[in-house]
Amino acid sequence: MVFKKITLIGTSTESFEDAVDDAIERAEATLENIQWVEVEEFGVELATAEDREYQAEAVVAFELEG
Amino acid sequence: MVFKKITLIGTSTESFEDAVDDAIERAEATLENIQWVEVEEFGVELATAEDREYQAEAVVAFELEG
Amino acid sequence: MVFKKITLIGTSTESFEDAVDDAIERAEATLENIQWVEVEEFGVELATAEDREYQAEAVVAFELEG
Amino acid sequence: MVFKKITLIGTSTESFEDAVDDAIERAEATLENIQWVEVEEFGVELATAEDREYQAEAVVAFELEG
Amino acid sequence: MVFKKITLIGTSTESFEDAVDDAIERAEATLENIQWVEVEEFGVELATAEDREYQAEAVVAFELEG
Amino acid sequence: MVFKKITLIGTSTESFEDAVDDAIERAEATLENIQWVEVEEFGVELATAEDREYQAEAVVAFELEG
Amino acid sequence: MVFKKITLIGTSTESFEDAVDDAIERAEATLENIQWVEVEEFGVELATAEDREYQAEAVVAFELEG
Amino acid sequence: MVFKKITLIGTSTESFEDAVDDAIERAEATLENIQWVEVEEFGVELATAEDREYQAEAVVAFELEG
Amino acid sequence: MVFKKITLIGTSTESFEDAVDDAIERAEATLENIQWVEVEEFGVELATAEDREYQAEAVVAFELEG
Amino acid sequence: MVFKKITLIGTSTESFEDAVDDAIERAEATLENIQWVEVEEFGVELATAEDREYQAEAVVAFELEG
Amino acid sequence: MVFKKITLIGTSTESFEDAVDDAIERAEATLENIQWVEVEEFGVELATAEDREYQAEAVVAFELEG
Amino acid sequence: MVFKKITLIGTSTESFEDAVDDAIERAEATLENIQWVEVEEFGVELATAEDREYQAEAVVAFELEG
Repeated sequence: MVFKKITLIGTSTESFEDAVDDAIERAEATLENIQWVEVEEFGVELATAEDREYQAEAVVAFELEG
Repeated sequence: MVFKKITLIGTSTESFEDAVDDAIERAEATLENIQWVEVEEFGVELATAEDREYQAEAVVAFELEG
Repeated sequence: MVFKKITLIGTSTESFEDAVDDAIERAEATLENIQWVEVEEFGVELATAEDREYQAEAVVAFELEG
Repeated sequence: MVFKKITLIGTSTESFEDAVDDAIERAEATLENIQWVEVEEFGVELATAEDREYQAEAVVAFELEG
Repeated sequence: MVFKKITLIGTSTESFEDAVDDAIERAEATLENIQWVEVEEFGVELATAEDREYQAEAVVAFELEG
Repeated sequence: MVFKKITLIGTSTESFEDAVDDAIERAEATLENIQWVEVEEFGVELATAEDREYQAEAVVAFELEG
Repeated sequence: MVFKKITLIGTSTESFEDAVDDAIERAEATLENIQWVEVEEFGVELATAEDREYQAEAVVAFELEG
Repeated sequence: MVFKKITLIGTSTESFEDAVDDAIERAEATLENIQWVEVEEFGVELATAEDREYQAEAVVAFELEG
Repeated sequence: MVFKKITLIGTSTESFEDAVDDAIERAEATLENIQWVEVEEFGVELATAEDREYQAEAVVAFELEG
Repeated sequence: MVFKKITLIGTSTESFEDAVDDAIERAEATLENIQWVEVEEFGVELATAEDREYQAEAVVAFELEG
Repeated sequence: MVFKKITLIGTSTESFEDAVDDAIERAEATLENIQWVEVEEFGVELATAEDREYQAEAVVAFELEG
Repeated sequence: MVFKKITLIGTSTESFEDAVDDAIERAEATLENIQWVEVEEFGVELATAEDREYQAEAVVAFELEG
């Protein structure tokens, strides 16, 4: 059994939680067997966003097929 | 005056905030004089949970009795 | 183009998100051209607060005028 | 569901693996519901040991009873 | 010449070394020109494993084709 | 032979050294076989103290009985 | 909007800057919508290189298509 | 309630404690409502000092006026 | 003698070195007695820049007047 | 009593443990009064080795003669 | 002009400051042109010392002769 | 095969790259079999230098003779 980790940054105009969920949903669209997520960092983008854009860097671990 | 720190991981199916509160409430059930909490890490468990389980590692500092 | 970073700690009796927003709003009251915010740390103050006081340490980056 | 983490340092005259197992076995003697272990550090003590004493600092996470 | 790094977590019921080898062998099954491996973390899973499952997080560096 | 580590924060109105000693003395009041202490952090509390309160976070390692 | 981060190590016989550019150019050959790059580490390889080979570990962030 | 943190380096020919106090006193000369201090680093300057100059990097947190 | 540290991010379309110099020159425009600079991080902005914008986060230490 | 620390990287075609022992034995060939060893990092070299070369970065502490 | 850094651990039965001074004095006995010292860590040894032995890990930087 | 690591700080009035090369050249003057260099930190000295003195802390790894 081998797992792989990838790093995604989810975004949301609402909350940090939605930003994490955004990253998880994107991962679930292309990966199976997602096991756990480690949140690496929270931030807010103001310069290029209309309003506050909440961002969450999420390391997603999933099981590789044998 | 001496403080002690212990490390708890609270969980919630709702949000990171609830996960932190979960850890604080568990600490308050057995400890008095809790002073402050440092959040060390947020994560999400997917493999062994029915749905997304939000987790928060919380270092709880409380004052030891003299 | 040069940016400067300052470190603020916002507080809220409601949530970590409100604590971050609190820091951003304080920054916006005196600074222009805020670009982004990095959340350094979340904590909860219990000893000196009436109830739980959520705290967020936020590094705010803004563009210096030329 | 709340987990607690404690830090133990296991020792062995044979190997790092035995040192980790030493810490786990000590934890299992007094705790139930051990979930996972994070190895924080490996070292070797030479000054006060007869021979090489392998050491492993192990953070042990277990579920607190409700 | 450009290298790429990916993060795998190998597992073994025997030892940390086997867990690292497990990750390397999985990498070798799909990648060529593997150059070196950095071990990021050792852990032991107890809750969802029958017995102790040794885990090793391994960052694998390989050369990209030109 | 297994060691355990706990984290205490000693305080003193005089010096950082007294703050470390404060933590060691508190540990010695309830624990035997203390082996070594690692100082994790020094700080000064001003808001809730009458004067400057020097603080030292001390990780205390002691040998567990067999 | 979701971003992904990958880690590349660019090389150059001339300079660290060329090594970073080398990694960026390799990324641009296969990825669109590259947003920013974080330099993680600089090094110099001497043993297996004819002369000094400057190396730069670059984390490349790009936007995933919706 | 919002706090701000600034970083000062105090110096002393006598001791690390005096160096921290030096930074605190300088902060108190221009700031009100100082709450706490985190010591980031201790050092000793020898090259440009007549004798040993003890240095302490101190992060000073104070409450911003509303 | 007390020093203060501030954090600036210099930018350049040419090189990391120019980005550091950019931050130093901005600091010299408003501060006297600059003592040393610590480079915290290098990055490259691609999304909002016409071409590659090299960035350098520089912590600038200067002596406060007595 | 003063200790000195040096950093060695031991290698082995067999195991991480042998790699640590390799570093300790090299240290013992030229130094007396070795006190303890801290393992900083494990890695595996594949590119320039015939097979897998296990590597261990070991910080060796020894007592200096008076 | 090139500097070299070495790592010493000074000890004292009196104070952390004396432990740092102990390391500096040992360095001055064999090295010239010592420039500065960075304190990496403070600790206290209790198991093998008669009383509390304060320890300071000090990185000593000195200028190499041309 | 055992490697040793030493830490040098090279300097240059021109650039960070020259500062790294300065450290490598000094190492090559007294050591054989240098394998690789890890850059730990870049800085600029202004107070004691005539102009900007670029500095690079370089960890140099070389193979010890058998």
